[in-house]
Amino acid sequence: MIFKRKFRVRWVDTDTAGVMHFSNYFRYFEACEEEFYRSLGIDMNQLRDDHGVLLPRVEASCKYKAACHFNDEIEVALIVQDVEPKTVTYQFIVTRNGEIAAEGLVKCIGTNLDWKVVELPGDFVRIVKSTQ
Amino acid sequence: MIFKRKFRVRWVDTDTAGVMHFSNYFRYFEACEEEFYRSLGIDMNQLRDDHGVLLPRVEASCKYKAACHFNDEIEVALIVQDVEPKTVTYQFIVTRNGEIAAEGLVKCIGTNLDWKVVELPGDFVRIVKSTQ
Amino acid sequence: MIFKRKFRVRWVDTDTAGVMHFSNYFRYFEACEEEFYRSLGIDMNQLRDDHGVLLPRVEASCKYKAACHFNDEIEVALIVQDVEPKTVTYQFIVTRNGEIAAEGLVKCIGTNLDWKVVELPGDFVRIVKSTQ
Amino acid sequence: MIFKRKFRVRWVDTDTAGVMHFSNYFRYFEACEEEFYRSLGIDMNQLRDDHGVLLPRVEASCKYKAACHFNDEIEVALIVQDVEPKTVTYQFIVTRNGEIAAEGLVKCIGTNLDWKVVELPGDFVRIVKSTQ
Repeated sequence: MIFKRKFRVRWVDTDTAGVMHFSNYFRYFEACEEEFYRSLGIDMNQLRDDHGVLLPRVEASCKYKAACHFNDEIEVALIVQDVEPKTVTYQFIVTRNGEIAAEGLVKCIGTNLDWKVVELPGDFVRIVKSTQ
Repeated sequence: MIFKRKFRVRWVDTDTAGVMHFSNYFRYFEACEEEFYRSLGIDMNQLRDDHGVLLPRVEASCKYKAACHFNDEIEVALIVQDVEPKTVTYQFIVTRNGEIAAEGLVKCIGTNLDWKVVELPGDFVRIVKSTQ
Repeated sequence: MIFKRKFRVRWVDTDTAGVMHFSNYFRYFEACEEEFYRSLGIDMNQLRDDHGVLLPRVEASCKYKAACHFNDEIEVALIVQDVEPKTVTYQFIVTRNGEIAAEGLVKCIGTNLDWKVVELPGDFVRIVKSTQ
Repeated sequence: MIFKRKFRVRWVDTDTAGVMHFSNYFRYFEACEEEFYRSLGIDMNQLRDDHGVLLPRVEASCKYKAACHFNDEIEVALIVQDVEPKTVTYQFIVTRNGEIAAEGLVKCIGTNLDWKVVELPGDFVRIVKSTQ
């Protein structure tokens, strides 16, 4: 399964070169991940408040292929690349007019509220895995 | 007393019009406020952890006089305008090459960790007031 | 006419106090303004490329009434408050679950590409005015 | 040569998990790169205005080792990893209290103002290379 969401490049996303600043792709990766969880009925607040689990990133990367400009409609595709008991890795593909603008990878790890690595809740793992 | 700090306009602060995005002035107001507290020995973490007090903003405004560009050195001046038992109001003046680029106002209020309005810690009020 | 758009508070919008950072309300004001223009067939890129007109802000303010948290759905309402030959002023009201979270004001001014104040294109003024 | 600059984690850099948001490390990488250029007398504005050359990123990555909190002083180290006629690659190491918090890589490419890949100006290449 490939989960997709469309976003609009905002004025504030751009920089003096007239294009979306490279750091903002990571914001859209995360926005897409948040919508992915919502679509699956996974609530990040519940993960923290009921399970005491946070999902910080241990790795993030992006390769930039084409510049995005103000007002461009971009589509972010999320692909679950790997689900382990303690980590989940997502691949992201950003397209604009059907052309690839960027490709990225984000690896998240389960921690408790003291930032010690823990296993992700079973339900979370099962649901995310089911989309592969 | 006027507290001043210099900052450098970053590439990421700018937008496709080639100037610092209007929302980023508020980030520099706050950075200046943070350095003001540091200069006075006030620790925002302690305020929360020892006193259970947060300092959210109830009002923020800015008038923009001249555009700032990438690499500009800006100076942010903070003036304590008003200190009340529950609120503190700062005036900010941003200059670039001695010319005013923006003027703003930020009003903060003391709350407990449940976001109920409370009096600010006496020491905080006394120290901030002493700079007037 | 009141123009309304819904947005979702993102993880990145929040700060260590667990709420949306005060500067980010201005980002959502602008996102709403951008959607407002799109709904009217106004293209900010065209304004710059065809008319040589930019629309920087000369004033921005916000009063914060209630905190917004990660995952909250917020609705931003835009009301055209004033349209002059060279300026346009918008009022913004942010609600969450029908309750007012913030109210703001943004005043924009027409400039040419050298940042000299100019009259806004007639069509722009006419269309924006028609929504009052 | 290792170029180092200290920065202060701002309130706005943090998120609801109480730590610096993962996307903001890329902002500090870039701030350090900007100071690196300044230390070498390289002016990014000149690069664009005199040489018609921009320096967009084609790749950016970060591995997160330890969380950074509000008010932490972080040191960002920049190491020139590779200089080619058209690209330059920087390694970044973020430390806090002498402990590694994050490690990253950013690869930049020369383009003209139409976003076509071009060779970087000879002086730029020579100066950056001289720091290796």
